[in-house]
Amino acid sequence: MIVTALPSLPIALDAMGGDQAPSEIVAGARQAAEELGVAVVLVGRPEEIGDTGGLEVWPASEVIGMADDPGQSVRRKKDSSLVRAAEAVRDRRACAMVSAGNTGATWGAALLRIGRIRGVSRPAIATPLPCPGSDTPTVLLDAGANVDCKAEWLLQFAQMGAVFSRERYGLPSPRVGLLSIGEEPGKGDSLRKDAYALLADGAWTETTGATFVGNVEGRDILSPEVDVVVTDGFTGNVALKSLEGAMRSLVDAVLATFGSTAETQAAAEVLMPALLPLYGQLDPNNTGGAMLLGVDGVCIISHGSSNATAVVNACRVAAEMASVDIVGSLATAVTPV
Amino acid sequence: MIVTALPSLPIALDAMGGDQAPSEIVAGARQAAEELGVAVVLVGRPEEIGDTGGLEVWPASEVIGMADDPGQSVRRKKDSSLVRAAEAVRDRRACAMVSAGNTGATWGAALLRIGRIRGVSRPAIATPLPCPGSDTPTVLLDAGANVDCKAEWLLQFAQMGAVFSRERYGLPSPRVGLLSIGEEPGKGDSLRKDAYALLADGAWTETTGATFVGNVEGRDILSPEVDVVVTDGFTGNVALKSLEGAMRSLVDAVLATFGSTAETQAAAEVLMPALLPLYGQLDPNNTGGAMLLGVDGVCIISHGSSNATAVVNACRVAAEMASVDIVGSLATAVTPV
Repeated sequence: MIVTALPSLPIALDAMGGDQAPSEIVAGARQAAEELGVAVVLVGRPEEIGDTGGLEVWPASEVIGMADDPGQSVRRKKDSSLVRAAEAVRDRRACAMVSAGNTGATWGAALLRIGRIRGVSRPAIATPLPCPGSDTPTVLLDAGANVDCKAEWLLQFAQMGAVFSRERYGLPSPRVGLLSIGEEPGKGDSLRKDAYALLADGAWTETTGATFVGNVEGRDILSPEVDVVVTDGFTGNVALKSLEGAMRSLVDAVLATFGSTAETQAAAEVLMPALLPLYGQLDPNNTGGAMLLGVDGVCIISHGSSNATAVVNACRVAAEMASVDIVGSLATAVTPV
Repeated sequence: MIVTALPSLPIALDAMGGDQAPSEIVAGARQAAEELGVAVVLVGRPEEIGDTGGLEVWPASEVIGMADDPGQSVRRKKDSSLVRAAEAVRDRRACAMVSAGNTGATWGAALLRIGRIRGVSRPAIATPLPCPGSDTPTVLLDAGANVDCKAEWLLQFAQMGAVFSRERYGLPSPRVGLLSIGEEPGKGDSLRKDAYALLADGAWTETTGATFVGNVEGRDILSPEVDVVVTDGFTGNVALKSLEGAMRSLVDAVLATFGSTAETQAAAEVLMPALLPLYGQLDPNNTGGAMLLGVDGVCIISHGSSNATAVVNACRVAAEMASVDIVGSLATAVTPV
């Protein structure tokens, strides 16, 4: 699929970030340029990047590893690919940055180098969660950036998540839920009670076209009843990984039964074509990555084990979000607190 | 299976609690008495309970509904089946209470009527989570009783969870993990950082034989690497319901593909016998219910849609936990804070 309105600036792609960097990142960049027609610049060590198939390289001598401390590494490794990619967005030399590297460091680099949208208290990571059997993913935010949150930040997450859901999935009136442990307004801890009071006052929805559907529970996240689920970064990350873990453990157990006898194996082969679309839907390489909402530029975070396909999808989302000027929409939608 | 060492006192079963009460509860009680040889007393409205097959009924005129406010209903409905069941445990007329009703009210009734074990700050709900393909469930606590927690309470949850894992699943040295959003000690919010420091000081494990395995993430909960996962009741409930939701949504999507054509339907029928044990393992009616740890008596909480099988399993666990005197073990294991 060609991105319809191409951004005029290239995407700054962190060539060194991710478990399969740089080979799969470079392969994905070449594929994105070819298939989507977007301009991609690889940021990193030219000698490790190798043949770019003609894509430009912006040299950066340092690499922030997956295990590096996010805050320290961003401050110390000033010539890292991640920091340089963020600076390219800040300096308007790139329309967006994409990284499959250290999530915390990506957040840190974007926050420190690009900075926040005026009025945004805390940028948040918005992660699309594919819902088995449903077309539109649920957007969960914050998926891990801000562990100790204030209720006012959750209100901004709601506004930003609604804009993302609208711009990315074309939902004119996204249904936003507050993640809690019971549907009634009074349910949850003190943060949830305070956040509920703010969200129930519908004024915040006027800037976004969103609808507040009240509290939702963990079991509702993948349901077709909600489009955006708002929570603090600690709970969001636990929920996200619990969902992933449950799916993985169930898929593994089902596959084990498929392989248990020659008879089940034959039956499983008949089912495989029907199961493959579901398998593809749940493959994280196909979701297009998470987006850091609230920084003054487009920043897409692809998962750590991204392959070339994941990079193509992340670049596509980056180009789309840049071309619709999601940052401008976020700036308009968010109520300063 | 007959419970080997039968408790001398009967189990007080809340006949009125649960979506399928009283019919399935009474059926389960009769089956438990027959199959396990345990004494079960039904607590509730005699006229609604109907034929007990000879089981004793302790009358209680009021019913706490699933939607009732837990605190208020326990205080106001003094003659409710839930409150009367808790009083029977308090007065040593019953060895344990079992309810499939309002979880919050069960917690409240137990806390107010039975009281806490001396030294326990906050009783917690310990929920066994079946791990697909593994024999021993992971015990998650607190699964929803205490939403705003202190680090010291989490330390006691660790001690109580370890005792429960040992007594219920026979693990001599349960591996206890702290639910967080990264494996490194510094990861998580302020509660997690404080709790980690307390848990990493191994002194607390001496009373339980437990091992502290550090932080675990949402995706590790169902893994074979951890036996007990400790967290606050808000996060625990979100994680629990996220796991359930993911499993349900995946199972539904897989079943939908099974039924898509005549060919897939035939193949699925071949696979069904191999899939049934997995299906059975994940059926909440088979887990035996959650246990409220830290009150001065045995209190088993079965899930709201419990059928007769769930009631039998809950009664079995109640009898076992009473006969091994888990309350005595908990009292010894917990370090007062």
